[in-house]
Amino acid sequence: MEEKLRLLKQKLIEADDLDKAAAVLSWDQSTHMPPGGASARARHMATLSQLAQEKFTDPAIGKLLDELTPYAESLPYDSDEASLVRVTRRRYERMTRIPVAFVGEISEHTAQTYSVWAEARPANDFARIRPYLEKTLDLSRKLADYFPGYEHIIDPLVDFSDYGMKAASIRSLFSELRQALLPIAQAITSQPPADDSCLRKHFPQDQQLAISKKVAAQIGYDFQRGRVDLTHHPFETNFAVGDVRITTRVKENLLGECLFSVMHESGHAMYEQGVRPELDGTPLGGGTSSGVHESQSRLWENLVGRSRNFSEYFFPQLQAAFPEQLGGVTLDAYYRAINKVESSLIRTDADEVTYNLHVMLRFDFEMDLLEGRLAIKDLPEAWKARFLSDIGIQPQDDKDGCMQDVHWYGGLIGGAFQGYTLGNILSGLFYAAALDDHPQIPSQIREGKFDTLRAWMTEHIYQHGSKFTADELVRQVTGGSIRIEPYIQYLRSKYGELYAL
Amino acid sequence: MEEKLRLLKQKLIEADDLDKAAAVLSWDQSTHMPPGGASARARHMATLSQLAQEKFTDPAIGKLLDELTPYAESLPYDSDEASLVRVTRRRYERMTRIPVAFVGEISEHTAQTYSVWAEARPANDFARIRPYLEKTLDLSRKLADYFPGYEHIIDPLVDFSDYGMKAASIRSLFSELRQALLPIAQAITSQPPADDSCLRKHFPQDQQLAISKKVAAQIGYDFQRGRVDLTHHPFETNFAVGDVRITTRVKENLLGECLFSVMHESGHAMYEQGVRPELDGTPLGGGTSSGVHESQSRLWENLVGRSRNFSEYFFPQLQAAFPEQLGGVTLDAYYRAINKVESSLIRTDADEVTYNLHVMLRFDFEMDLLEGRLAIKDLPEAWKARFLSDIGIQPQDDKDGCMQDVHWYGGLIGGAFQGYTLGNILSGLFYAAALDDHPQIPSQIREGKFDTLRAWMTEHIYQHGSKFTADELVRQVTGGSIRIEPYIQYLRSKYGELYAL
Repeated sequence: MEEKLRLLKQKLIEADDLDKAAAVLSWDQSTHMPPGGASARARHMATLSQLAQEKFTDPAIGKLLDELTPYAESLPYDSDEASLVRVTRRRYERMTRIPVAFVGEISEHTAQTYSVWAEARPANDFARIRPYLEKTLDLSRKLADYFPGYEHIIDPLVDFSDYGMKAASIRSLFSELRQALLPIAQAITSQPPADDSCLRKHFPQDQQLAISKKVAAQIGYDFQRGRVDLTHHPFETNFAVGDVRITTRVKENLLGECLFSVMHESGHAMYEQGVRPELDGTPLGGGTSSGVHESQSRLWENLVGRSRNFSEYFFPQLQAAFPEQLGGVTLDAYYRAINKVESSLIRTDADEVTYNLHVMLRFDFEMDLLEGRLAIKDLPEAWKARFLSDIGIQPQDDKDGCMQDVHWYGGLIGGAFQGYTLGNILSGLFYAAALDDHPQIPSQIREGKFDTLRAWMTEHIYQHGSKFTADELVRQVTGGSIRIEPYIQYLRSKYGELYAL
Repeated sequence: MEEKLRLLKQKLIEADDLDKAAAVLSWDQSTHMPPGGASARARHMATLSQLAQEKFTDPAIGKLLDELTPYAESLPYDSDEASLVRVTRRRYERMTRIPVAFVGEISEHTAQTYSVWAEARPANDFARIRPYLEKTLDLSRKLADYFPGYEHIIDPLVDFSDYGMKAASIRSLFSELRQALLPIAQAITSQPPADDSCLRKHFPQDQQLAISKKVAAQIGYDFQRGRVDLTHHPFETNFAVGDVRITTRVKENLLGECLFSVMHESGHAMYEQGVRPELDGTPLGGGTSSGVHESQSRLWENLVGRSRNFSEYFFPQLQAAFPEQLGGVTLDAYYRAINKVESSLIRTDADEVTYNLHVMLRFDFEMDLLEGRLAIKDLPEAWKARFLSDIGIQPQDDKDGCMQDVHWYGGLIGGAFQGYTLGNILSGLFYAAALDDHPQIPSQIREGKFDTLRAWMTEHIYQHGSKFTADELVRQVTGGSIRIEPYIQYLRSKYGELYAL
C-alpha cells in the first residue's frame, strides 16, 4: 500500500507541476509580459491546462484511489495519507464527470467572452455582451447537470470553490446577515459622510510600494518565499509553498488602495506559506476553500489593518514615510478616513459595512438566473432596482452596474461570489476564537507584534492546507457550525463606536 | 498531404508549447524568483522538459515525417513545407537516438555538477569538482557514441548547436584565425595599455539601465515584443516571436558592462524578433545555430556598438545622461576606452582581439579531452601552460583558470564554445556582405539610422529562422563557404588605426 501511495503522490505531483507552470505563465502575463506575447501565451497556457487535466484524470489515478480507499479509511481521518486519498478522490470524481470536450468548450467560450467584455464594458454596451452571457448561463447550467441529484442547481457550482456549502445554508446565513447589516448601513449613511481627505493627496508610487512591502513583512509575509509586483487587478498566486507571490496596484492620489490591497493579498499569501511543506504539490497543498481563503485576506486587511490598535502602531510609520502629506493629520482622523462607510457603486471599492450587500445581491442574481426566474436580458434593470433597495443608490449605467465584475464575463455564473461574504463571516469567527485563546492579541497588535495571531492561524487553519473542509475547520475551532454572530458583533462594536450608533 | 502537414504542425507546436513554458520558468528563475522557490522550480522545469521530449519524439511524429518526406522533396527546397519536414526530420532523428533514460541521467548529473561547481569555484577547489567533471566527460563520449560514423568524436556534439560544422573544418578555420590574431594581439599588448579610466567612474544603475534600453530601442529591439530585466549572467530568451526578452547586469563602477551586454543581447533578440511569424512554434522558429546567433549579438555589440561611427552618434547622448562623469571626456578618449585591448584572464571580459584566443583554446581542450589525449586531472596545468603561450599571462589559480566558465560544469564537454568564434567570423562576413550591397551603412550609423543594416539582416538571415543551416546562409549571401578574411580585415583595419600598427 505504501508503494501505491508513493505512486499516487508521484502522479499527482506531476499533474500539479503542469498546473503550477501554468500559474507562473499566468502571473507573468499579468505582471511583466510585453503586449506582443499575448496570443502565444494563451496557447501555452491552454496546452498546459489541458495536459494537467489529462494527467489528473488519468484512469491509473482512479484505480490507485480505488485500491487505496479501504486502507485510507483504516487510518486516522486527519493523517496525511487518509486525507490525501479522501480529498483527491473527491476532486477526481468531480473532474472525471466533466467531459474533456466540454472543458474545452467552456474555456474557449469564456476567453472569447472576456475579450468582448473588455471592450463592451468601457463602451457601456450590454447588448453586445448579452448573447455571450446567455451562452455562459447555458454552459453553467449544463455543467451543474453533470452532477445530478443536487438540491439547488447552484450547489455543484458552489462546490468547486466552497465545497460542502449549499444554496440553502448560504441563503439562510446571508439573509440573517442582511437583516443585521441593513440597519447599520442605513444608520451610518444617513449621517454626513466621514472626511477621508487625508488619504486623497499625492502619494508617489515608489514610496507607497516601499511602505506597503514593509508592512507586509511586519505582519509576517515571508519575502524569502514571495515577492510583490504591480498589476491591474491585485491577486495572490502560489507556485510552491516556497514561492507565493502577490501583486498590487497603486493610485497616487489615494493612499489606501495599495496599502490595504497588499495587506489583503498578504493574508492570502500567509495562508499558502503556512501550509505544511509535506503537503506541497498534492491536492492537499494550498488553501481549502474560497471562503476560508478570503477569511484570511479580510482578517489581515480589515480586522487587523483597519483596526484602531494597528493604526496606533502603524500610523507613525506612515507619517514618517509621508511627512508632508500626513504630518499634520491626527491618528483619529486617519482611523476615521480608512473606515469611511458610504453607499457606493463598485464592490471592490466598498467599505466593510456595505461590502457584503454588494456580494449578496450578486449571489441572489446567480440563483435567479440559474433557476430561470430571471433572464439575462432583464439583468440590467433588475440590477438597478435591487441596488437601490439594498445599497440606497442606483447606477446610471451598466458599466458600473451589472458589467462591473469580471467574474461572469471570464468564467461561469454561479459559485463566484459567495466566498467573499463567507470569508468575512469566517474572519470574524476565527478572530474571535483566536482572542478567546489569547486575549492579549489586540494589545500585541498595538505594539506591532503579530506572532501570536499568526501562530494561532497557522496551527488551526494554515498548516492543514486542504485536509479539512471549511465546515470541518469551523467545527474543530468552535465546536459548532459557521455562524454570523462574531462577525456582526465585531462590526457593531467597531462601527457603533466610530459612528456613535 | 495537407491534412498530414497540419497534423504534424499541431503536434510540433504542442511540444514547443511545453518547451516555451519551461523557458518562461527558467527566465523567471534567473530574474524574479524568490530563493524559496528553487527546489519546486527545478522539478517543474524537469517535468516540462521531459514531457516536451516525449511529445516531440512521439512515434506518430516519426510516421508523419516518413509519409510527408516524398511530398516535401517534391516541393521547392526553401518552401515552408519542405523546410519544416526536412529540419524536423533531422532533429527528430537526432532526438530519438538518445534513450530517454540517458537524457535523465545527463540532466541529473549536470544539475548536481553545477551546484558543486557553484561552491567549488569560489573556493578554488578543482579537486572537489574533478570526479564530477570526469563523469561529464564519460557522458559526453557516450552521447557522441549514439551517433556512430563520425569523423571526430566532437562532431555529433557540435551538431547540436552548430549543425553541419565538423572538427576538421573548425580546426582549419581556427588555426588560420589564430595565425592572424596572435601577431595583432602581441603588437598591441606590447604597447602601454589604453586608458579606460573614463568608463571607471560611478554610474548609477537606474541611469545605466535607462540609456541602455534607449539604445536598444534605437538599433531596433522592439519593446512591444520584449523587455529587459536584471540577472547575474545576461542572456536572451524567446517565448514566441512576439515575446523575446533580454537580461543584463550592471556594474556601477564600469560603464561598458551593461551598455554593451544590452547591445549584445539585443542582437540575439532582433534575430528572434525578425523570424517570419508563420514559422513560430515549429522547429523552424528561432535562430538556426549558435554561430549564426552569435554573429548577430557580436555584430550589434562590436561592429556597430564599438565602432567610431556609432560612437559619434551615441557618445553625445551618453554625455547628456552622465554630464558629470563624461562632460570633459573627448569622443576619441571614449572610443579608445571602449576598444581597449589587453591580455586578461576571463573570457567574458575579453576585448575583440583577444576574445577568440580564449575560445579557441577551450575548443582545443574539448577535442583533447574527448580524444583521451588529455586527462581531466591534468587540465588545470595544461590550461595554465596554454594560456601563457596564447594570451601571454598565466592564471594564478583554477578559479579564474579552467573553472571560470559554467559550460562544462552545467552541461557537456564538446560543442559549447566553438559558436562564439564562428559567430565572430560570421559577423565580419555578413557585415561585409551588407556593406557590399549598401555602402552607405557606415554613414547611416553615424546618423543613428540602423534600418538599412537591420533590413539586410532580416532579409538574408532573420526571417528564415532555422530553415537554412549556417553553411546554406553563407552560400546564399556570398556564393562561397565560411571564411575568415572579412573578419580579419575588419579587425586589422580597426585596430591597425587605433594602435597605429
